[in-house]
Amino acid sequence: MNKETVEWIQSIDKISNSHVEEAKRYIDGLTKPIGSLGLLEDIAARLSGMKKQRFPKISPPGVLVFASDHGVVEEGVSAFPKEVTAQMVYNFLNGGAAINVFARQIGAHFSIIDVGVASDMEHEQLVSRKVDYGTRNFVQEDAMTEEQARQAILVGMEATQAIIDQGAKALILGEMGIGNTTAASAIVSVVTGCSVEQAVGTGTGISQDAKVHKQKVILKAIRERQPNLEDGLDIVKKVGGFEIAAIAGAILKAAERRIPIIIDGFICTSAALIACLLQPNAKEYMFASHLSQEPGHEAALQFLQLKPLLDLKLRLGEGTGAALAYPIIEAAARMLSEMATFESAGVSKG
Amino acid sequence: MNKETVEWIQSIDKISNSHVEEAKRYIDGLTKPIGSLGLLEDIAARLSGMKKQRFPKISPPGVLVFASDHGVVEEGVSAFPKEVTAQMVYNFLNGGAAINVFARQIGAHFSIIDVGVASDMEHEQLVSRKVDYGTRNFVQEDAMTEEQARQAILVGMEATQAIIDQGAKALILGEMGIGNTTAASAIVSVVTGCSVEQAVGTGTGISQDAKVHKQKVILKAIRERQPNLEDGLDIVKKVGGFEIAAIAGAILKAAERRIPIIIDGFICTSAALIACLLQPNAKEYMFASHLSQEPGHEAALQFLQLKPLLDLKLRLGEGTGAALAYPIIEAAARMLSEMATFESAGVSKG
Repeated sequence: MNKETVEWIQSIDKISNSHVEEAKRYIDGLTKPIGSLGLLEDIAARLSGMKKQRFPKISPPGVLVFASDHGVVEEGVSAFPKEVTAQMVYNFLNGGAAINVFARQIGAHFSIIDVGVASDMEHEQLVSRKVDYGTRNFVQEDAMTEEQARQAILVGMEATQAIIDQGAKALILGEMGIGNTTAASAIVSVVTGCSVEQAVGTGTGISQDAKVHKQKVILKAIRERQPNLEDGLDIVKKVGGFEIAAIAGAILKAAERRIPIIIDGFICTSAALIACLLQPNAKEYMFASHLSQEPGHEAALQFLQLKPLLDLKLRLGEGTGAALAYPIIEAAARMLSEMATFESAGVSKG
Repeated sequence: MNKETVEWIQSIDKISNSHVEEAKRYIDGLTKPIGSLGLLEDIAARLSGMKKQRFPKISPPGVLVFASDHGVVEEGVSAFPKEVTAQMVYNFLNGGAAINVFARQIGAHFSIIDVGVASDMEHEQLVSRKVDYGTRNFVQEDAMTEEQARQAILVGMEATQAIIDQGAKALILGEMGIGNTTAASAIVSVVTGCSVEQAVGTGTGISQDAKVHKQKVILKAIRERQPNLEDGLDIVKKVGGFEIAAIAGAILKAAERRIPIIIDGFICTSAALIACLLQPNAKEYMFASHLSQEPGHEAALQFLQLKPLLDLKLRLGEGTGAALAYPIIEAAARMLSEMATFESAGVSKG
């Protein structure tokens, strides 16, 4: 990254504790027993601290789906052929995927970004920011060059800026990339220190034998690539993916703009680890949406000290878990701005 | 209940297993790895079985809030004075309570029914179906007469019919009644066999000493009243509440109309126990929305074999947990009707 970008990342601020405390006091005066809305009260106070507003608005949200291919697929780590990445991008563009359905339900702005699909794609609605035709096979060589990693991070930043300019007041991040649970498992294992066995699951649905093979592939990659566990850029370059780097960039831009970020499942959380290595303050703008069926997700969330809002046994990605959790966060914001106080409603206190 | 009502309750049918199975097969062809939408897939299949439709619609939902007072409050079991029931009803009518906020968010029809508030109330929007000015103190005598119990159940049935006629396609049930965790704890202890200590929590926020007192009050009431643990009508008459009886009636009517019912927290679940004693098939139309902070809720849900969708540390009631869970159930319905199949989208299978 150039000096300007590095300085910009360093400038990302924590949330405002004085706004958090003020919101908590205000919430205690709303017409309900103190604390009775549980986690919604914490969410609302944090939103207030992020936006530095008494009545933060988070609607409409914006959904960004970053798509990319992975060279490591040639090691036979996925249940689906590589072509599915591009096929699913067309499905997103035609509105038929799960994330389209859930994004429509919550009235979200929606954008799909090609940051590294392995084939040429054309569609009016597609944001084409291809860094390369997929990453390299990171068992053999680095997944990407340092310049490509920077470029992918910038793609994420720009897409976030664009959707905020369209009016998005909260950010839902998703991804599509056959093979990307392999990259995410490598990142989670490197950053959190959990074993590769703990970090690896069945992805889109591989067999137990294939899972053991996937673990061996990741172990070999980490041994060969030797990523620096404190350097987010080095990790994403060596064992990451373009969509993971882009999501890390999107998180940093949202944090800088004081926009709440709803983290989806395993892949997205691996990108959150990268973002937090680059700027720990970014964590304060994150909500963890759900606990994925991928076993490494729990270790990643614990590392970030985030607790998931939902546990619906999901393992799809695309941003679906984050879109499903969004209404809870919106409800918290509405609680702040729309509920009556004991005083305004003339209700006796306990 | 008269012979006609009893026969009507007996006629409530199970959900359609053939529709459940057909929906499951269809879901396996949608563009996502099989099973990757976790609980949403089960919810969607159950909705299909309830409505006997391939593409069940559950929007808009209807919210019914039943309000009533409790004679047992004179034993000093609540952190709030009795007057708060009526004050909160006016808050609902003016749109300032938490359930109003969450009902607006999900575009719900909304109705508030006075089934037994202890004071005269007037408001254009209030559905006045007062059975009495609150229940009797059930430590001293039965909470209500058998005729009153029947009447309250009918109020719930009629309110459900009315909101379905307005267009509601799913039902969210809520309540307001200072003292009603005491009645609910008694019901849950009697029906599930859990101890009173397990069934009693801090309600709207009483002290530990007050909790021990509340347990003693309930133990005494159960000993004095001797409710028949297999007879829903007898239990609600002896230690229940008008709003609890009304919710049981609302559940039965919704089940008969094959409308999905989203069960809120502790009070609502105690009413679900009553409804299921009257007609076990009603359970098949229920979704448990959240796990309440009230300790008896878990025992009640286990008895019903229902798993809560959310765990947000709520303990407010009013239907708030059910309204917060509704978007997840709506997402499941939309998944069925809006997602593309592998075939229609031209995506390769794994």
